[in-house]
Amino acid sequence: MQPPFVRLDAVRAFELAEGVTGRPLFGEGAMLNLIRFEPGATVPLHSHPHEQLGIVLEGMQALVVDGVAHELGRMEAYVLPGGVEHSAYCGPDGALVLDVFRPVREDYRDRWEAEEL
Amino acid sequence: MQPPFVRLDAVRAFELAEGVTGRPLFGEGAMLNLIRFEPGATVPLHSHPHEQLGIVLEGMQALVVDGVAHELGRMEAYVLPGGVEHSAYCGPDGALVLDVFRPVREDYRDRWEAEEL
Repeated sequence: MQPPFVRLDAVRAFELAEGVTGRPLFGEGAMLNLIRFEPGATVPLHSHPHEQLGIVLEGMQALVVDGVAHELGRMEAYVLPGGVEHSAYCGPDGALVLDVFRPVREDYRDRWEAEEL
Repeated sequence: MQPPFVRLDAVRAFELAEGVTGRPLFGEGAMLNLIRFEPGATVPLHSHPHEQLGIVLEGMQALVVDGVAHELGRMEAYVLPGGVEHSAYCGPDGALVLDVFRPVREDYRDRWEAEEL
């Protein structure tokens, strides 16, 4: 048996918000999601029961939690416990971010599969 | 409540194998581990019950599964189900890799905390 190996930045993208796309890789109980923010794009305030970890790979992503904006540059990482409301914005050059969710976001899988149709 | 935000490449490193170090960020049920391979370093064949996902950020990391070597460059990602034996080697320039484990590797936490002493 050979496990999945994929070029993540070539995976088909789905839309997370206007100007924000994700390229997912689904494991059994966790997943990766490579997020591209176009310059000026934002993710509105939301929450999910899934634990979220992540790291900024390029540019700047700000995560806003309880009204406090954390502006994160390359190699800055985070843990958002499940249920914590957060929003996000990026810098003038956009951002490339790797998100991790546990468990798998089945809502993302459904949306990603639906966009293939 | 503000969740953890850390500059992952500045986290104290612990040794994974000769020439291979990790910089961990522990969540509740998953963790990140930023791995640096020095040129020529290898990780011997091993397995663990934890699911492992990851992505190569710089250089080349090869993952060997069932005798097949998968040489992975920047942005190439993988899922290794729990219990799958694997080894790893890197290219002549070493590699920078982000690994994800589910659940948390408590053995890593113990080793990371022990190296602080």
